[in-house]
This record gives sequence, structure tokens and C-alpha cells, in this order.
Amino acid sequence: MESFSLIGKGVPRIDTTVKATGEAIYTADIFLPRMLYAKVLRSPYSHAKILHIDTSKAKRLRGVKAVVTGADTFGEYWGVFRYTRDQQLLPQDKVRYFGEEVAAVAAVDEDTAMEALELIKVEYEPLPAVYDPIEAMREGAPLIHEQFEKNINIHVNIDVGDVEKGFKEAYLIREDRFTSTEENYCQTEPYAVVANFDHANNLELWLPNASPHTKAKSLSNLLHIPLHKVKVRKCYIGGAFGGRSDIFPPEFIASLLAIKSKRPVKLIYTREESFTAIRQVHSMIVDSKIGVKKDGTIIALDIKAIMDGGAYSSTGPIATSVPFLVWEETYRLPNVRFNGYRVYTNKPIRGMYRTHGRAFLGGLGMQLDMVAEELRIDPLDIRLKNALKTGEKQATGSIIPSCGLSDALKLASEKAKWKEKRGKLPYGKGIGMGANGMMCGFPMGIRGGSQAFIKFNEDGEITLISGVVDNGQGNDSMLVQIAAEVLGVNMDEINLVSADTEITPLDQGAYSQAVAFVSGNAVKNAAEDAKKQLLNVAADIMGTKPELLELKDHKIFLKEDPERFVPLHKVVRTALIQKRPIKGEGSYMPDVDQNREWVKNPRGQHAGTFSYSVAIAEVEVDTETGKVKVLRLVGAHDCGKAINPIAIEGQFEGSAGAAGVGGTLMEEHLWSDGRMLNPNMLEYKVPLSVDMPDETIPLIVESNDPKGPFGAKEAGLYGSMNMFQAITNAIYDAVGVWIKDYPVTPDKVLKALEEKKKNQS
Amino acid sequence: MESFSLIGKGVPRIDTTVKATGEAIYTADIFLPRMLYAKVLRSPYSHAKILHIDTSKAKRLRGVKAVVTGADTFGEYWGVFRYTRDQQLLPQDKVRYFGEEVAAVAAVDEDTAMEALELIKVEYEPLPAVYDPIEAMREGAPLIHEQFEKNINIHVNIDVGDVEKGFKEAYLIREDRFTSTEENYCQTEPYAVVANFDHANNLELWLPNASPHTKAKSLSNLLHIPLHKVKVRKCYIGGAFGGRSDIFPPEFIASLLAIKSKRPVKLIYTREESFTAIRQVHSMIVDSKIGVKKDGTIIALDIKAIMDGGAYSSTGPIATSVPFLVWEETYRLPNVRFNGYRVYTNKPIRGMYRTHGRAFLGGLGMQLDMVAEELRIDPLDIRLKNALKTGEKQATGSIIPSCGLSDALKLASEKAKWKEKRGKLPYGKGIGMGANGMMCGFPMGIRGGSQAFIKFNEDGEITLISGVVDNGQGNDSMLVQIAAEVLGVNMDEINLVSADTEITPLDQGAYSQAVAFVSGNAVKNAAEDAKKQLLNVAADIMGTKPELLELKDHKIFLKEDPERFVPLHKVVRTALIQKRPIKGEGSYMPDVDQNREWVKNPRGQHAGTFSYSVAIAEVEVDTETGKVKVLRLVGAHDCGKAINPIAIEGQFEGSAGAAGVGGTLMEEHLWSDGRMLNPNMLEYKVPLSVDMPDETIPLIVESNDPKGPFGAKEAGLYGSMNMFQAITNAIYDAVGVWIKDYPVTPDKVLKALEEKKKNQS
Repeated sequence: MESFSLIGKGVPRIDTTVKATGEAIYTADIFLPRMLYAKVLRSPYSHAKILHIDTSKAKRLRGVKAVVTGADTFGEYWGVFRYTRDQQLLPQDKVRYFGEEVAAVAAVDEDTAMEALELIKVEYEPLPAVYDPIEAMREGAPLIHEQFEKNINIHVNIDVGDVEKGFKEAYLIREDRFTSTEENYCQTEPYAVVANFDHANNLELWLPNASPHTKAKSLSNLLHIPLHKVKVRKCYIGGAFGGRSDIFPPEFIASLLAIKSKRPVKLIYTREESFTAIRQVHSMIVDSKIGVKKDGTIIALDIKAIMDGGAYSSTGPIATSVPFLVWEETYRLPNVRFNGYRVYTNKPIRGMYRTHGRAFLGGLGMQLDMVAEELRIDPLDIRLKNALKTGEKQATGSIIPSCGLSDALKLASEKAKWKEKRGKLPYGKGIGMGANGMMCGFPMGIRGGSQAFIKFNEDGEITLISGVVDNGQGNDSMLVQIAAEVLGVNMDEINLVSADTEITPLDQGAYSQAVAFVSGNAVKNAAEDAKKQLLNVAADIMGTKPELLELKDHKIFLKEDPERFVPLHKVVRTALIQKRPIKGEGSYMPDVDQNREWVKNPRGQHAGTFSYSVAIAEVEVDTETGKVKVLRLVGAHDCGKAINPIAIEGQFEGSAGAAGVGGTLMEEHLWSDGRMLNPNMLEYKVPLSVDMPDETIPLIVESNDPKGPFGAKEAGLYGSMNMFQAITNAIYDAVGVWIKDYPVTPDKVLKALEEKKKNQS
Repeated sequence: MESFSLIGKGVPRIDTTVKATGEAIYTADIFLPRMLYAKVLRSPYSHAKILHIDTSKAKRLRGVKAVVTGADTFGEYWGVFRYTRDQQLLPQDKVRYFGEEVAAVAAVDEDTAMEALELIKVEYEPLPAVYDPIEAMREGAPLIHEQFEKNINIHVNIDVGDVEKGFKEAYLIREDRFTSTEENYCQTEPYAVVANFDHANNLELWLPNASPHTKAKSLSNLLHIPLHKVKVRKCYIGGAFGGRSDIFPPEFIASLLAIKSKRPVKLIYTREESFTAIRQVHSMIVDSKIGVKKDGTIIALDIKAIMDGGAYSSTGPIATSVPFLVWEETYRLPNVRFNGYRVYTNKPIRGMYRTHGRAFLGGLGMQLDMVAEELRIDPLDIRLKNALKTGEKQATGSIIPSCGLSDALKLASEKAKWKEKRGKLPYGKGIGMGANGMMCGFPMGIRGGSQAFIKFNEDGEITLISGVVDNGQGNDSMLVQIAAEVLGVNMDEINLVSADTEITPLDQGAYSQAVAFVSGNAVKNAAEDAKKQLLNVAADIMGTKPELLELKDHKIFLKEDPERFVPLHKVVRTALIQKRPIKGEGSYMPDVDQNREWVKNPRGQHAGTFSYSVAIAEVEVDTETGKVKVLRLVGAHDCGKAINPIAIEGQFEGSAGAAGVGGTLMEEHLWSDGRMLNPNMLEYKVPLSVDMPDETIPLIVESNDPKGPFGAKEAGLYGSMNMFQAITNAIYDAVGVWIKDYPVTPDKVLKALEEKKKNQS
């Protein structure tokens, strides 16, 4: 076992001080000289033709510096894939949801901008609208995009093995429908953009984002500005959760206004706008048919999922296959079929979310427990039996480089006293489990890799340059920790420059759990490149060979005789004087199979590696009120290698605790004819501190991935997905009812209890 | 002859648009949220002990956020060399010149800061002061720094060959004294600093500077902040001319105030403060004894120079030897002695200036003409006879890699019709010449080199990362031009990131004419590193060998069959997909000899290479008023290779035209007991457009330096030095008088004419 100076140690994250003191500058905090303030005019219809927009009065208002509408765009359409380019970021033809951006104003202050909005006259021709995906697919439903028949945005179709044969061989077959409403990402930071444009055609942008390079590339295409002139800058970011990945109207609008006015423009979306007009989480209808052998081995699985995509594609087409991929990463599925439909409706836009598919992953995890119940198998054992292992191939072809799933199941069960508690707690109390895999470094074309530079100051201190963005999860700190380990210095001796597209090399973004695995490897490679140069220079100074040397704690020393050493700073200075200054570079791209049709029918290796996680929840159900309280949460996480255990624990608490509890028990959007009724933090319920589990026990399983940096993979993200399964399964253990519709609100629990009583009587 | 796409072409500089539109952000334009405004309390004495400073009332004033005095420093002293550390940037013991910084205030606005200054009570004990360097060296003169005897800051002593023997062998010996007053650098931009400090101990700074890395290093030492936490940022800079090289009180003060207040602080020096308390040019007294053979060959030279250094060292110790070095770079000096004294006085601080020593270089150039006159030799011929040539060794040992001095003398003479005009123009009109060499890439310890990174965007566009600063001379544009040439792209496809110590690697700064030669080489090496990778990838695509390929105009093609090619962007994308992304790095350090005592007695190679320049001025002297007008200026410049001829021409016009005319004819400080009487642009005379030569003809001589990037060396800087010689020599040709005291103001001309008349009658 290699001994590390920093890796595996619980070190304070480098971003904590400035966040605690409030000095961290988020987009809305940015002020530029001569800056204008923007406001957006929104559609009052769910579906309507735009006949005419008259902005003349608004333009004449004193203090108004620019007004933009669809006419100011280049007629470009945005979409992650060529065949999903369906959104003009300011529409010219028609509006497709209530609240969609129609026009925008930049003025000397917000009041003037809002006054100007009232002076813009838009003539609409209202069109029939559709708000339900099932209705939207029916013959004769209003078409939201002409080119998408039956309003089907994408149909993912995966068929592996022989599903019919599998069902024929099955001892037990079950069919269930699981459903879930829309959720919100609820990033703490409302969406905001600052754009600045100069006469040398440079467009600078500050905005919350999960990938500065992706944002820059998209804006370059949409605005017809060369990519290297679009400079997405670093700022602090208050959460992403998958909802900051693609390009949104606000950055397009702020850029257009800056270009038109030749002044900096700030556009802050209110909480209501952030809820309605950024991204939301798909609602889902999942029909799952499972066939198992008598011993619980899954032999056939046939899933149909319908996702309400809202008005445009966004990242939804990718999100359509991900829930399936998560499931095939977790369990052995010899014969499996998946039909996933993402359907347009006249509602706000849905995108990828870190906890893909409550109905899907929660539902399928519930169905496993149902099967176990019928077969009288322990839910732990049915999971252990079907759990994938290191080196195994998943249904669509991915090989698993490392897998700690079984270890995580065993460890979590032991710490949670599973065997002592399952089925043995008093009525009203219960325990349940969930388990999932997760891809690390998902293909995104040539944007799937990462590069890093390292430069040394003459005093031996270091600047690390990486394109990685930190949305709050601690990426910045992790990268510094990796480089510091390799280069034998303290973390505070490394200065990180990141997330600026002008300065930093290409990186895929904090997306698809890629940062630790992919970007971490790039940083490690860059540091090792520099270390190699350091050892060479030191070898010359010491009159020895570089392979006999090691670097640790600011010293380069003989492995055989650590007392013989040269200080790091001396090596760096000597290298400068000898005209071979130390500067490292590294890159990494995961080994994945890519092709254009991939998203509709994934085949081959779909990610660089896979991490695994298990959650066990103990709940108490108040049978009077239907309210469910999570008492205890035990999570075991195979993150390959824990780079910073306390950072992982923090992530786990947020993910499994807050997002898992919220997603399972309370979070949902309410609607009236396509209008969101609860677009704010008062009426949209998220867990408060009192709703969090009374006790959270995070456990780490280290499978030491052969390709991961120091063995590391993703960590902490997807405890939430397990919780959808664990809590519903625990509710069944507590009171004997299955709630198949997320969120599991008290009224649903009460209704189920009443029905159960009725059936029993 | 290699054919270039961009090198040698007169292309528009990349910084012109934003400067022309006024969008370029200079330090004083910067605004940060929560920013405070600082003002400085200055010494009312030329020399006085500081007995006590009471800031309590100032601190209590509403709106005052921080007050600093010498007590807030760490007692550190600043100096370029260890033995010249004589300046506390806020003094604790005593003040040494009228106007020196004593205390400073940061407040919510400038008015409050100024009001607070009035509330600071300082008790002084006045000391006797000395304002003249000759008096300062006398026994019993007040000592300005205890550790420097006779107020001698530095004594440079060079003795090569046998000077006494040389004089014995001489046919003719002359002794002359040349003098000059102080000048001001007159950068268009008044000095300004913005400092920002956060709770993670990062100190960010914006300020006009000639070397961000040097400023950062000095502040790191003085403020006890790790180097990588001191981040000097890029901003536009309105001129340097040698006067932005070392560290000044304003950045130290602004930093201290930011650290104390934990808020951003802006400190703008008024024009008066910029004149008094930044840097000025040394006044000089030069005694030169020259011995020549009958044919004009210089056989002995003995020079003594006394420079008034003002109150502190600054970069003055380096400036003491530079005029001598310039002269030994130009002419063959077999037996030469130089004694240079830089002396402290109770006057503001003097530093390096691009036109080192009017009295020295102007004087020695005049003396050459005097010798020629006595020997009845043409001034052109005496220069050609003594001019150094490629491969020759200078007095103190530097070998000259390339030398176009003789070619420049011949070309300029031909274009100026020297032979037809010299001695043949009507009374009142005259023609004169001057010639100089100049070092490129002067040693500055390990800070003498440069490094650069190059990264490719996926679309084939490029980001170039270099530590080079652009003070207005066009460095940014030149580096982009070099990289674009090597990489076969247009200049606007390269995005430059420069002059930011956090992001960019080490560079010596725009100092010692190093940028084209040293930093240009580093950028070229980085581009060639990337090009090598591009050719390797292209060779694989084309199934050929990289050495058979060439890169030009966005194509990599077979040298033998240019129709067979792959587009650059395709190679870049392929490289990304093949996991070998293109990223270049390069460094360069000139071959120079360095040792600690170097500055007192330089020996060995003192610069990487040397450029050469000649100026011929035609003047008209108004014998009624004494006013001299430069009619025509012909300059020939051996810049090795002209990277951008129009940029060089612009530099030459500014240097020879504006600075040369101003320095020779009008620029001087006026004093009363150490108080500057003309610290502003109204009373300090600089050339206006009407004072510029009626005609300026810049000529380029290309000596193709073997080590320079594409053969290039420094370009355009030192036309001014030649003009000191050319104008005074032309005045002699016009009216027969030598004016040995700079500036050559009308009163001096009239007085000389009167004396000449008296002597003749």
C-alpha cells in the first residue's frame, strides 16, 4: 500500500474561508463600470404564434440602451445534438410555454428596464396547448415542433439478449407502474449572467455553469463569434446538480444586449424566473416488467418510460437513457429491453438531473424488494445475487474496471444492523435499502477529456491551470490536493487557475461525474510530468539517476538514503538557471465508444469507469398524519479511493440526506394549464434541517480503480438515488404499503394505509 | 531566404482598436465593489527625523477605513540588490526628500481621505539637507543613509587595457565636461494602483508596470505574503520607458491599506505626485578624456561620471553602468576606464531611463565630432573606423552576435545626403549624426528568461500564454505575430493571455530590450513545440513522415506536393480524439555571464545580443532667439529582422522624434531647495506636434541575428540617444558652437553664440 501525504486525509477545502466570510463573488455580485441592467419580457401564453413585436416605444424610453427580440438573433437553433436543435433562444415563430423569453431590455437600472418591458407590444395568435405527455403523443394533439411527429423528442430503444425467452424461463414475473412529478433543482443561487463586449469583438461572460468550455462553444456558434473571442470567466457558483450544463436564453440575451449596447450587461433571474425558465427535472411514467428465477436472479426486464420534456430538448435526450444506464451499471441484466420516450409538452424545459428518475430508479429498486418479498428472499440477498462485479460486462457492453457494490452492500448492512432490524421493528418503524452504480466520464464527443498545465514560480510555489469548474462540490480543492500530493508540497502552496475558457485548456466540465476520474487524471499527469523534470534536475545536482530519487515534503531525496536530499525550491531555481524551467502538462480522456447515434441506442463502453453506492434508511411513519421521518441513514460509497474523506461525507449528507429526503418525500411542481403554481422557495417544499435524517453515517468503500487517479472515482453524488429506493422500501417495512408515485407525500401514505385497511377488512 | 506569411509585414497592432475607442481599461479606470479610495500624506521637509505620528483623529473620522504609517510595515527595506536595500516604502526613521510618502488613508471617497490626511499629526526634527551631488560627496556633508559613506550609493569602476599607455601613444587628446539636468519620464498615464485582498490571503494588484513578475516578487518579500498569493493582473499601461521596473511606495501602501481594511483600495497619484514621487531621470556630470591616433582610431578613453541619484537607490545602481555599456557596445575601445558614481541627495528618486545619460551619450558623441573636426575627418568616417563589427569582442568581454552598425551608418548617410550637406549648408542650418548600440536581454539573475504556453481550442484557434507585459510599445501584438507565423494561422485566431502573474509563466519583463529577443524566442519555441506535435499527428493521418510536412495558411501539406494536405483544424481535432491534444511550451534565457558584483564591474557577456541605430538630424537654428528646430530626421535601425515594420516606425517616431527632440532641446526639472518647481505638464516642457521634426525617415537594417527569433533583436527604442548627439552636432554644423549642457535651450544657444562672437572679435 502506497503511503500518501495528502490523499485520503480529511483536509479543509480551499474554498471554505472565502465562502464563510462572504467574500466569494458569485455572478450577481459582479459589478463592471458602465454596466447596464437587463429584464426579460415573457410569454403570457403556453402556445402561441408571435405575429408582431413593437419595441419602438421601449427604445425611446430615457435610460434604455438596447432592446432585443428574436429578430436580433441569427435564426440559429440550439440543441445538444444536431437532430435536437429545436430552440431559438429568443423565439421568432412562436412561444411554446408560459414564461418563455420573448424580448429583453438593457437599461441604466432595473426599474427603467422593467418600465420599458411594459412598453413592448407583442401580438400573439394563441394556439391549442398540450400539457400531458400521453395526450401529446395522441393523434391530433397540437404539434409543438413541426419536425417531431407525435411530439416525440427522442425514442431510446435498447434491446439486449432475448427478453421474451427470458420471461418464458422466469419463475416469477411482476409488472408495476411507477410515476413521479416534476422537481426543481433548487440551486441556492438564482440564475444570473454578466456579459461584456468590446470593440475588439471579445465577449466576456460570468455565469453559473457546469462547463465553461461548453457554454463558450455554444455561444460562439449561436452568436457567430469565434470561439477564442468568447471568454467564460471563473466565478463562484451556488450549485449545479446537472442543471447548468447546456446553454440557456439568459446568457444569449445578455450577450446580445451587450453586443448591441457595447456596454456590460447584468441579467439576474428572480427566484420565480429561475424556477420557471431555467431547467427542471423530468416527470416520468415507468412501466416495468421483471422476470426472475426462483433464487431471485433477474432473467428478464422490459421497461417503458415516458418522460415529460416540456417545450424544448435541452439535455433531455441524454437524460432519457441515463436512468437505464444506471440500472445496467448496477445489476446483471442478461435479457433486457428499454423503450424511453421523451415527449414535448407546452410546459417549461426539463434537463438532466443528478438524481435521474425517481420513478425509474426508485421504482425499479422498489420492484426488486417486491420480488424478494414474493420469493421470501432478503432484499440484501437479492441485491448481492444480481450485483455486478469487477471485470463484468454490462448489458450494452461496458466493462467495469472496479466494482465495490457487494462490499458496499455488506458494509452498509452490517453498520445498519440490517439483519437484526429488517422485518423486526415495531409497526410504524421500518428499514429499507437502495443501491446504484454511476458512470464516471460519460462520452461527450471530443469534449470528453481534460487537460492541465502546471507552472512553477521561482520559489518553488506552483500554479495549476485546469479547465475544471467548481459548482460547490469541492472540485477546486480536490485538484489542488492531487497536484500537491504528486509534487510534495502543501495545498496552500498551489495556486489554482480554473474555469476560465481564455486561460485554461479544454475540460469536459463538472458533468457526468467526470471531474475526479477524468480531470483528476489530467492534473495528476501534469504534476507527474513536472515531477519527472524535477527528478531529472535533482539527479544532475546530486550526481545520481532520477529513478533512484523520490519527491516528498519539499525535498527530493535518494530512496535508499532519505537524508541525502536537495530542497524542492533549489531544484526549481537551478532548473530556471539551467534554462530548463519546470512546467508540466497532462491530459486524460476516458476510453469510451462514441458515435452519433449513441444516445438513441448506446452500445460499447459508455463511461471510463463506474462508482457504486448503497443507502439504508430507517424511517418512522406517523400513521395518523401520513408523515414519514427518516431517523437514520447509513450510506456506503465505493468511490475507488477517498481523496478527501470529509469532503465526501459533506457531499453524501447533501445528496442522500437533503436531496434524497426531499426528492422522495416532498419535492414537486404543481400546475394549472401549464402555469407553475409554486415557483418559489416558500411554496415549493424542500427539506429543512428538521427534515434531515436524525443521524447520517457515511461509509467509504475503496475499490481502487486501476485507471482512477490514486484509484479514485466519483464520490458523493448519487446517494439521493438510493434513497428513493431505501425510503419507500423502509415505508413498506414499517407499515406494509408500497407507494409507487413520487413524492411520497403524507396524503399518499394515508390513502395507501386506508386502502390496505379496506382490503384487509 | 525563408519566405514568411506575417513576419516582416506591416500589420495593424492588435491593441489599436480598443485604444482608439477608449475601451482599454487602465488602472485608474478599474472599479471593484466596496472599493476604497486612498490618499497619501507627504513630507514637508527635504530631510527630517520622524519623531512621532498621531493618526488617532484620522482613524475616528467617519468613512475612514484604514490608516497606515511606517509602523505598519515589517521594517523591511527595498533595493534591487542586497547591498542597495535602502528604502522603507513608508519610512519609520526619517524622511529624505520633500514629498516623500509618510502616511496614507483609505476611505469611502477621496474627499474623506483628504480630510483625514489633515487630521494626521506628524512631529519632525528637521535635519540639514544636501541637494548637489558634488557637495554631497564632500567631507562633513549631511549623511542621507548612515551606511553609505560620502553619500556614494555606488561606484562603478571599469578598467580595461592600459589607459595611460594609450594616452601616451595618442596623436590627439581632448578633455571635455558634459552635463545634463534631471528629466521626467512623462508617461502619459499618471501612476495608479488598485489593490484587493481577501480572507484567503490573496493580494490582487493592477498597476502600470514593466514586469508583473518582478512587482509580485518584491511585494511578496516586503509584505511577507507567499509569492503565489500576490497576483499582479493585466491592464493597459500608458508608457514605461524604464520607469516602471522596480517597486514603488504606492503599490506597497495600497496593499497595506487593502490588507488592513479587507477591502479593495484605489490609489491614483496626481500628475504632481507622479512627477515627484515616482521616478525621474538622473542628472549627470561627465568628464571625458579621449585619445586618438592620427587616423581617428580611438586608443584611450577615460570617463568619470557623477549621477545625482536622489534619496534612494531604486534601479539607479544599474543605470550607473549602462551608459558606459552602450558606448562599449558601439565602438572599439582597446584601453578604457570608467568611474561612475551615483550619489545620494535630498531630492526625489532617480531610476533607469530608456535614454540613459544625455550628458554621457550625447557628450561622447559630440566629443567624437570634436575630434573629427580637429583631425579634419568626416564624422561619418571616424564612426565607421571605430564601429564594432559582427563577432568582435567589446571592452568588457561581450561578443557581438550580429552588428549592422556600419551598414546603418552608410544607409542613413546616403538617404540623408550626408556627403552633399555636411559642412555645406547655409549658416543657420546644419546636419549632424549620432550612433549607438544597445543590449538586448540584460542579466537580472534567474529573472532574465521567459517562458510561454500555447493551447489549442478544438476548432484550431489558439491561446498564447506569456508573462510579457505591454507598456504601449506593441509587445502583445508582436508575440501574437510570431506565434501566428509559426502556426500558420491569422493573428486574430490567436488569443493572448499575458502579464498576469497568477496565470502566466515567468518573464523578465519589458526591460533591457529583452522582449523581442528573449520573450519572442520563448514564444517561438512554444509555437514550434506545438507545430512539431501538429506535424506528427498530420503525418499519421496522411501516412507519411513529419519531416516531409510543412504548416502554412491553416494547412499541413507535403513539402513536395502542397496539394496533398490536411486542414489544421482537422489535425487539432484528431489530436484531441487520439488523446494527444496539442499544447506547446517553450522557454528562452539569453547566454549571459552573471555574478553578484557584476553591476560594479561588469565582465564577460553582458547581454544576449545587441542592436544598433544611427540618427542623422538636420536642424535650423534661429540666431535671433536661440531656438533650434529639427527639420529632418533620418534614422537607420539594425533590429536584426523587422517583425512588424510599421510598429517599428511608430516606435522610432516616438523615440527619436518625441523623446530625442524633447530630451535634447527642452526637458528639465527646475528646483528650489529640493522642491520641484515644475511638476506638471504645463510647466515641464515636452515637444508638441509642432516641435516634432518636419520629416522623419525611418530605415531598417536587417543583420539577421543568429539567435534572435526569425533573426530579430530590439527595435525602435533608442533613437533618442542618437538624437542627443545628432542634434548637438548639427547645431555645431549650423552655427559653429558646441553646447555641452543638456537640454540645449534657446538661452544656452544665444549665450554660446554671444561668446563665440566675443572670442572672434
